[in-house]
Amino acid sequence: MKLKVKKINFETGTTKDVIINASDAKKLNLKAGDRITIKKPESKSINDKYRVAILQIAYSNSIVAPGEIGIFIDTIRDFENNTEVSIKPIDPPDSFKFIKKKINGLKLTSEEINNIISDSVSGHLSPIELASFITGVSINGMDNEEMTALTLAEAKSGNIFDFGPEVYDKHSTGGVPGNKVSLIIVPIVAAAGLTIPKTSTRAITSPSGTADSMEVLAPVAFDSEELKKIVSKLNACIVWGGALDLAPADNILIEIERPLRMDPFGLMIPSILTKKLSVGVKKIVLDIPVGTGTKFPTPNDGKKFAHLFKEIAKNVGLEAECALTLAHQPIGHSIGPAIEAKEALTLLRDYNAGPNSLIEKSTSLAGIILEMGGKAEKGQGQILAKDILQSGKAYEKMKQIIEVQGGEPNILPEDIKLGIYEREFYSTKEGHITDVNNAIINQIAKAAGCPNSKTSGVHIFKKQGAKVKEGDIIFKIYSNSQSNLKRAEKIYNSTGGPIILGGMMIERI
Amino acid sequence: MKLKVKKINFETGTTKDVIINASDAKKLNLKAGDRITIKKPESKSINDKYRVAILQIAYSNSIVAPGEIGIFIDTIRDFENNTEVSIKPIDPPDSFKFIKKKINGLKLTSEEINNIISDSVSGHLSPIELASFITGVSINGMDNEEMTALTLAEAKSGNIFDFGPEVYDKHSTGGVPGNKVSLIIVPIVAAAGLTIPKTSTRAITSPSGTADSMEVLAPVAFDSEELKKIVSKLNACIVWGGALDLAPADNILIEIERPLRMDPFGLMIPSILTKKLSVGVKKIVLDIPVGTGTKFPTPNDGKKFAHLFKEIAKNVGLEAECALTLAHQPIGHSIGPAIEAKEALTLLRDYNAGPNSLIEKSTSLAGIILEMGGKAEKGQGQILAKDILQSGKAYEKMKQIIEVQGGEPNILPEDIKLGIYEREFYSTKEGHITDVNNAIINQIAKAAGCPNSKTSGVHIFKKQGAKVKEGDIIFKIYSNSQSNLKRAEKIYNSTGGPIILGGMMIERI
Repeated sequence: MKLKVKKINFETGTTKDVIINASDAKKLNLKAGDRITIKKPESKSINDKYRVAILQIAYSNSIVAPGEIGIFIDTIRDFENNTEVSIKPIDPPDSFKFIKKKINGLKLTSEEINNIISDSVSGHLSPIELASFITGVSINGMDNEEMTALTLAEAKSGNIFDFGPEVYDKHSTGGVPGNKVSLIIVPIVAAAGLTIPKTSTRAITSPSGTADSMEVLAPVAFDSEELKKIVSKLNACIVWGGALDLAPADNILIEIERPLRMDPFGLMIPSILTKKLSVGVKKIVLDIPVGTGTKFPTPNDGKKFAHLFKEIAKNVGLEAECALTLAHQPIGHSIGPAIEAKEALTLLRDYNAGPNSLIEKSTSLAGIILEMGGKAEKGQGQILAKDILQSGKAYEKMKQIIEVQGGEPNILPEDIKLGIYEREFYSTKEGHITDVNNAIINQIAKAAGCPNSKTSGVHIFKKQGAKVKEGDIIFKIYSNSQSNLKRAEKIYNSTGGPIILGGMMIERI
Repeated sequence: MKLKVKKINFETGTTKDVIINASDAKKLNLKAGDRITIKKPESKSINDKYRVAILQIAYSNSIVAPGEIGIFIDTIRDFENNTEVSIKPIDPPDSFKFIKKKINGLKLTSEEINNIISDSVSGHLSPIELASFITGVSINGMDNEEMTALTLAEAKSGNIFDFGPEVYDKHSTGGVPGNKVSLIIVPIVAAAGLTIPKTSTRAITSPSGTADSMEVLAPVAFDSEELKKIVSKLNACIVWGGALDLAPADNILIEIERPLRMDPFGLMIPSILTKKLSVGVKKIVLDIPVGTGTKFPTPNDGKKFAHLFKEIAKNVGLEAECALTLAHQPIGHSIGPAIEAKEALTLLRDYNAGPNSLIEKSTSLAGIILEMGGKAEKGQGQILAKDILQSGKAYEKMKQIIEVQGGEPNILPEDIKLGIYEREFYSTKEGHITDVNNAIINQIAKAAGCPNSKTSGVHIFKKQGAKVKEGDIIFKIYSNSQSNLKRAEKIYNSTGGPIILGGMMIERI
């Protein structure tokens, strides 16, 4: 059947969708989700003649009338309006057979994995096919060879930077609020003379990602050329990975994993490693928070993961060290983009300002990198990291990073404004803090407006073990909107707040 | 955020998709696939105030500009243009947790299954979530209780007809070409006085479905009221199930299963039974073709399935008998909508015209129904079925069915026209037919234009065991298009044709 191309000014994402009218679909016995080739009959070049696409159906004539084929502007760029084309159903690509193989519990070869990855990127696999693949991997797993192949295939799918043979990084598997450690670690490591091109994400489900907090101090969105300039000047950066076309295959899988709420090890390990390969990282320290609310309920789960991670890393040419870390309460006292930037900047300027949990966690992770990079003897890394932080060298480095990324290097913590709507909560009795609940903190911070409102957030005055007198301030919410503040307060009041204050008596019988 | 409704005159199918502009999505930190509630602030009725939808993102302003929310006309019908609404992300429905439970290998309760089914129909589960569910069922299976619950949940999702306590049906699990037996069985059973409201599908992957062939003789698309009238007049019909709103939940699952090429027993058995429950069937005979190209490679596979099917049928209040049938070559000599109708009509008019395979298969299955309905003693059903066919009573009944469905009852086989482009193939040597290849026949028939072109098809003159002389006609292709005929011929020539002619000598050494 001959159809006329009608370009539709609307983007569909990665899948190569096209639309025909329901009456044409009926004539051709085609259904939504069928895979077709579109042939431009007048074209002489074979490269320009055929396109593969996934079919959608229009049941009204207003967007695509009978005799037309709607092509989304991002789907097939080079087919002009009113070109005459013909379409034909085709079988799924080979990669679909490999997806079935995984679903049937069989092991995939690296060639098969390459195939799945390249068809994901070219849009030849549909979202439901990818959902089926991810579900299959969730149930049947992937072995070390498969994860290794997947990492390499994903890395190949996008830009790969080369910042030389000695490039370091730090990554966290997540799940602990207030984890602003990258803002301390990067300047320490860079101040010691090592290269650390830190790319990070914005918050997905948490109140603030590293990129969100950093953006309070300086721009974080750069293209490849800009990134190269920044890192060549300074050996360091703290940027958002989203603008850099790093491993687009991984992004495509994440787009399906996220709504399915699946993050199987078989995909998670390749996902972390592939982003590191993309920015040319050679050695990495992985922070694995363990405990309730993280991906690893017990230290033993974290340990098993660490060994697996180190092995796959080695297979793809990366040296990895892992650190299991405490995750029972937030790192530092602040949660939210601006308030976290403020806390990090405060510590960088004045070691004595603390907080202790942030110092300890940042310097222990930075210390491992310093040891890996030969800057300190084994076991001496944290001491060096603390020295660098205390000496002000890390702060100097951070000012340079802020400046080269286009921020104001002399920004002071007090320049960082927080939401104008505030609410403080006070202790109603004397005692000590027995528990600080991460999940409630996250809920309150998000209700207050995080991460979209950078100035919203929470301040935790009293953490586990602290002694409290009646009338002490224990918690504060900031918000940029009165209604958001109300929502956040409501959560505080209905849950009783995240901070559990115990007396000396456990129970009165 | 306040958004203005913009109705989009385009249908998306069952999922409740809405679209917002990428800039608004960024502000709200929402991504494609996120689930939201849409709230009409001015509405006082709680029923009218909230809608749940799945979010899509527009990257250009032409369809949905910032500040607008695009609502597809079939998504949410009662929100008018320019109404002001606000949106809020929400968690997936409980049914999504039950999908995860199945993926984790656990058994679902009937309440959980009801939940999944009602959320599928209301569009609260997205296609990728359903794909994940189907993949989970494919890998982890469903036990008898789950299949029973699923059957009942699916049947409840749409119309349920009641044609009294004694209603019969026949169904086939498919996989054998030329299986036009329903066109013979229905009039035999109805002529014996039993009620058989046959609903069938159009071809999905085969050259012709029962509905496609019947449509050559009479219309097959009716709504519920029309169906009731037809069956009340005649106790029989041969119609297309697609217009009757039978078990829409099943159709939604099939829409995802089809492109995923998955048809796990856990979904297949409920799918068959639920459609039968919908038309009020009480007793059913299931035709299970076994062998290469069918769902059951060995008789043993078919047998296991038969026992399982009978058990689930019993659980939902249906009496089922199953018949394993030969599937090594087509039933009769014709494949294609018109040519199959022609062959069936020829046999109905003249028992002696055969073909034998069609007589034997139709009367053995019809015979089982006659025995189930008390019209014949056990073991005597096929004899009665043959009597009814031979006596012309089945033909009379078929004429009535054709008439009441709006066709020409006196249509003769020679009135049924076949494609004007033909090609005959002749034997080049003497011998006997050792093999007839179903897969090649299907390919040729579809290349010739089946099932969209009703007049296209193939005629097989010589089947397994037949003696052949040099120059005998063995195969003929009909097509309505010269280019399709050429494509079909090309397949014949490149494969050597579907008919394998063996000599007496096996191999010359």
